[in-house]
Amino acid sequence: MKITIKPERPGGFLDFNPGEFLARERMLNIINQVFRSFGYNPIETPMVEFAKVLTGADETSKNIFQVRSRGSNNEDSLALRFDHTVPLARFLSANPGIKLPWRRMVVGPVFRSDSPQKGRYRQFYQFDVDIAGCALMLADAEIIAIMYETLRALGLERFIIKINNRKILNGLADLLGITDRQKITAADVTKEVMRILDKIPKIGIAAVFDELRQEPVTEFDPSPGLTEANLIRLQEYLEISGDNLTKISQAQKLFQHISIAEEGLAELVEIMKYLEPLAIPTAAVEIDFSVARGLDYYTGPVFETFLFDAPEFGSVFSGGRYNDLVARFTGRELPAVGASIGVDRLFSALQQLGTLKIEKKSVSEILILRLTTDQDAYYLRLANRLRKTGLKVEVSLLEDTTFKAQFNFAVSQGVNYVIIIGRDELNQQTVKIKNLFTRRQEEIPITKLISYFQTITKIP
Amino acid sequence: MKITIKPERPGGFLDFNPGEFLARERMLNIINQVFRSFGYNPIETPMVEFAKVLTGADETSKNIFQVRSRGSNNEDSLALRFDHTVPLARFLSANPGIKLPWRRMVVGPVFRSDSPQKGRYRQFYQFDVDIAGCALMLADAEIIAIMYETLRALGLERFIIKINNRKILNGLADLLGITDRQKITAADVTKEVMRILDKIPKIGIAAVFDELRQEPVTEFDPSPGLTEANLIRLQEYLEISGDNLTKISQAQKLFQHISIAEEGLAELVEIMKYLEPLAIPTAAVEIDFSVARGLDYYTGPVFETFLFDAPEFGSVFSGGRYNDLVARFTGRELPAVGASIGVDRLFSALQQLGTLKIEKKSVSEILILRLTTDQDAYYLRLANRLRKTGLKVEVSLLEDTTFKAQFNFAVSQGVNYVIIIGRDELNQQTVKIKNLFTRRQEEIPITKLISYFQTITKIP
Repeated sequence: MKITIKPERPGGFLDFNPGEFLARERMLNIINQVFRSFGYNPIETPMVEFAKVLTGADETSKNIFQVRSRGSNNEDSLALRFDHTVPLARFLSANPGIKLPWRRMVVGPVFRSDSPQKGRYRQFYQFDVDIAGCALMLADAEIIAIMYETLRALGLERFIIKINNRKILNGLADLLGITDRQKITAADVTKEVMRILDKIPKIGIAAVFDELRQEPVTEFDPSPGLTEANLIRLQEYLEISGDNLTKISQAQKLFQHISIAEEGLAELVEIMKYLEPLAIPTAAVEIDFSVARGLDYYTGPVFETFLFDAPEFGSVFSGGRYNDLVARFTGRELPAVGASIGVDRLFSALQQLGTLKIEKKSVSEILILRLTTDQDAYYLRLANRLRKTGLKVEVSLLEDTTFKAQFNFAVSQGVNYVIIIGRDELNQQTVKIKNLFTRRQEEIPITKLISYFQTITKIP
Repeated sequence: MKITIKPERPGGFLDFNPGEFLARERMLNIINQVFRSFGYNPIETPMVEFAKVLTGADETSKNIFQVRSRGSNNEDSLALRFDHTVPLARFLSANPGIKLPWRRMVVGPVFRSDSPQKGRYRQFYQFDVDIAGCALMLADAEIIAIMYETLRALGLERFIIKINNRKILNGLADLLGITDRQKITAADVTKEVMRILDKIPKIGIAAVFDELRQEPVTEFDPSPGLTEANLIRLQEYLEISGDNLTKISQAQKLFQHISIAEEGLAELVEIMKYLEPLAIPTAAVEIDFSVARGLDYYTGPVFETFLFDAPEFGSVFSGGRYNDLVARFTGRELPAVGASIGVDRLFSALQQLGTLKIEKKSVSEILILRLTTDQDAYYLRLANRLRKTGLKVEVSLLEDTTFKAQFNFAVSQGVNYVIIIGRDELNQQTVKIKNLFTRRQEEIPITKLISYFQTITKIP
């Protein structure tokens, strides 16, 4: 007797059973169709890349899975991709012949080694849409239009696309006097500002302000925190409110002469201008100066999408402009903008909202009962002929060939029709067809069987 | 200036550009359709599994990629799946509620850490079809029918499905007196017989026979090689020829009273009986007693498929019966049979044969030139309206907005139509449509644009 192994699956990695698979497939098909309607071209890149390609030689990237051949000591290490954006940058750099601007889409699993928790997986699908080689805000507006059209096509109405601009966050650092004090990179500064904004919903404004008063703002910064004057400016920034135009004009006042922020605001204004011709309702897009996006590579507008009736899922469709990422490989800037659907997260949200239902447990439409096993050839021939007309047909393979066992099996599979041919039907050259939804049963001549199903335009 | 990173891809891992992706998608859709027509249910399992689940605690499995969190010392190791069959066994064991027999299909990447070489990848897609919980040879015949129908649906005619039975190889070990001599497992014996059969095409019968005369047959075996009487039997086995029925009757004579082989032969006879009702031509299936299949887990019939006009790709669709695999997890046998398409290998073969062509480089059907940039809203509105009719439409995002640059871009993308609206057309409320295939250009009132494309039933 062999030792058995537990049939365990590692935490954070999912299986999809047929019902889940088919519902997810419907969702992916809709997304696919919308992305392609905008002319986006599908590509595929491998799950595994060189680690240095993925991290940009940043040793602090902790949530990456390393991949090694068993028994190999080779540390020229491979890793599982954590998103589709970095592989896109690698792909673009490796294929200089691609005609720009290039609209591309990609779907597939990405991997993060975070400890798994509810709604956060270690393997999850992302469905991405990006335009490379275009600096025009028209491209950013198009990405927002795709986000809007996709969620509408998925049957959603109550959602909001929030937009901001990393340039405004850079300007905020300026405004708060952070950039002047130390020779730290723009990215570092933005990171610190993001850290501040991120803390506010967690510990409250007052506590954040206390910290900012007492502690150095950045780890590079030996001096104490922000001055009261700077804190007042931060407060003004946080208090910006009203409709999109009001917010913009308040921000323009606050950021006067801080050119990077002014540029960021002008970009948002331009994007807003394109929404009406793209048939996006004003209410669907909101400027929100607290939106930052976690990933480091964004350089311009950033987007997040929240479902009003399922806010606990966080942003289900997010993205932004990243003009520097390709430079990691080529040394030259290549403007790019895109967005990514968290497929598994959105799938869970759609199920919770009842917008996407798990319907059938089986793809099969017809089950032919095998009632008279010396007639196997007959059943096989019949199944074969029905399949040729485009129907999905199984012959029962239950070892228990009683009517009851096979009929119950058909019900459990959720097939639409059962075909019953026993000794009697064989003698009379007939066939019984039972519709498992209406429970109606008909007996027809075997010669009419094909045409019987052809008159049913669509099996439910 | 930052240090740039080489945009390299690790060896054995592929990218698919849009042309390749779309051709591959057509192929996968056809396979999908055939598998579903037989009522097979799609599932998905993760890329990553516990290593012990994949290998059955067999430490000799060398071509497996290990997966580790960066900086983790945890050796409860994860690994990338190397096929879909072992994850299916894990899935079945973890879901005892599944109604058997269960027809399931699955497609996705699998990973092997073999050193990459021409036509052998380290990540490659397998498209699998399996029946779990059915011991009837009807199931094996159905798998063969699916193999046949799939390759036909892909446009292939000149191929052969070769079948054998592991039970016959077990019987061969008996016949050669290998099993009697040592207490080694049936699997070990079969492995040794497979090793012998495998060597013949490489070094020739004479050399293999010399080895068998002089060296211990198995590593567990201290005694010298096969006796001359046994070698004569092996020769008889290897010389079996003729049509399928002739081969069977020759083998029956050779294996008289070796019950395991007789059982294997009877199974092949039963499978052959079902081929005619399944509409599979006799010539498409050949019994070949030298077929073994590399993987250890097969226990009954095994199948391989070769393309007459592209034999260098090896078997493109292979499988067999594996009744013991689920026992790894549950301790109980669960009969199962299935087959797997080597998608990337078959894709290469179909391209070489000219059966599958890479056609379009872009999914886009229509490109709207952006000739008058102060009319962006007009172009966006138009694109949006055309998309709502189901067309795939891009607005040009080239920064060079001359007619020539944008037109050349359209040609390079392979779109079907270019929509030209400049100052003149705006004034006259017309639109020029240029068909890039026929090179014909028409000018119509803008109000007729939607109906113009609606009359074209299908864009080429």
